Amino acid sequence: MKHVYVIGIGAGDPEQLTLQAVRALGRAEVFFLLDKGEDKAGLVRLREEILERHAPRPHRIVVATDPDRDRDAATGAYAPAVDDWRRRRGDIYQRLIAEELADDGCGAFLVWGDPALYDSTLAILEDVHARGGTDFDWTVVPGISSVATLAARHRTGLNQVGRPVQITTGRRLADAGGLPQGVDDVVVMLDARQAFGALTGQGLHIYWGAYLGTPDEILLAGPLDDALADRIRATRAEARARKGWIMDTYLLRRTQPPAPRGPADTAGGPR
Amino acid sequence: MKHVYVIGIGAGDPEQLTLQAVRALGRAEVFFLLDKGEDKAGLVRLREEILERHAPRPHRIVVATDPDRDRDAATGAYAPAVDDWRRRRGDIYQRLIAEELADDGCGAFLVWGDPALYDSTLAILEDVHARGGTDFDWTVVPGISSVATLAARHRTGLNQVGRPVQITTGRRLADAGGLPQGVDDVVVMLDARQAFGALTGQGLHIYWGAYLGTPDEILLAGPLDDALADRIRATRAEARARKGWIMDTYLLRRTQPPAPRGPADTAGGPR
Repeated sequence: MKHVYVIGIGAGDPEQLTLQAVRALGRAEVFFLLDKGEDKAGLVRLREEILERHAPRPHRIVVATDPDRDRDAATGAYAPAVDDWRRRRGDIYQRLIAEELADDGCGAFLVWGDPALYDSTLAILEDVHARGGTDFDWTVVPGISSVATLAARHRTGLNQVGRPVQITTGRRLADAGGLPQGVDDVVVMLDARQAFGALTGQGLHIYWGAYLGTPDEILLAGPLDDALADRIRATRAEARARKGWIMDTYLLRRTQPPAPRGPADTAGGPR
Repeated sequence: MKHVYVIGIGAGDPEQLTLQAVRALGRAEVFFLLDKGEDKAGLVRLREEILERHAPRPHRIVVATDPDRDRDAATGAYAPAVDDWRRRRGDIYQRLIAEELADDGCGAFLVWGDPALYDSTLAILEDVHARGGTDFDWTVVPGISSVATLAARHRTGLNQVGRPVQITTGRRLADAGGLPQGVDDVVVMLDARQAFGALTGQGLHIYWGAYLGTPDEILLAGPLDDALADRIRATRAEARARKGWIMDTYLLRRTQPPAPRGPADTAGGPR
């Protein structure tokens, strides 16, 4: 049967590849890359470098063009637009697997970060499989997410003792106007609007990072006041102008006043 | 200066080590292991296997005894109990770094999963550093968490399109009696009470996993009704009795009725 690996390749540092990912890279004969029509030479080079170093056997790279998606659709029309986009992307995946992979062939999709976080590859593969007609199995190789990288580079945990952490989007944070109820740690992804700017003066601490894991990495952290918000915005705008794109994420933490602590299990691990 | 690595070693599969983690393992001369006084031979063997394979240079292993912690303290007394426990653990870490590491030496703490999730090592090191008197620097190497492993093994994402995901503890879930407001995906860790059992009949789907990444891995998933809750409880009890310990986690997902979708960004990556 055809086999497809969905490989998390880390947030941007090739050293974040796991041994399992390296093994999967060595097994695939075909790598499916989606050309998102964006000018991110750095990321393309990084992906090529990963394949050069870790895909030693002869392999083919098949580049498909990502269907256009109307990111600026009004809120009401957004869900149908996404459904339509996913269907069209499913068509592409189906064709790739059907036509570009031998009957006992092994292919791979490379996903930045961890395929489980804000990435559509898994949902689309499941859709394609459910359509029937294309017989394949697939394996997911987890990767180091930008969330884990952010926390590691700032040398902080994502949660406080016995407390939850929520991962959300900039848009949802902006709509809520603050941290969700009962949550003191929020990681924000996909925030083109810099929603943190509206949350100054709420006693929050921000840990911000851009191009995490790459030589261009930028880290800023501190109490989220207007000065720091301005500094992050300016840093972000300058970096984006210089490189032509930006990939950033941040953790917002409420530590003042100390929330009433829930029962705590500080130490992970078995019990 | 003394240097300490805090290395995430993955959820239980040695192949989940990153290349960065392997590099750090190769640099350390001293590995600090905390003996938690528990009978988890499998995990101890796994950690030894990791060191045998990936710490080729001569090294010492220093085992310290974890301070006792009153896990059964009443809720009101819990936070002070944890503070006291962390202080005592800080004393141990301080002694390890001061006495077991040469002035320009390199040591490492190995942490299951990712050091950023429900682990106290980072907070304790920061405390010890803030005390002064012990001059050291430290680097965090992110790891594949049990959360990422759970999602990968079930081949599902952690979040729905443009929606948040919350990571929380069994105790908090039990206290809340359901998913937090506005959140349709919740990952539950440290759940000795099997809080999912009280959430049947709410239209939830559960993705459960134990001993993730190890040869003993168990996966169960499906609509969370009484039958499945019973099956997970029985499976968990049997496995725990057989092995003497259990390490499990699960994702609860609400898909019915479809929540009004927020504006979606399905594809991660730069923008």
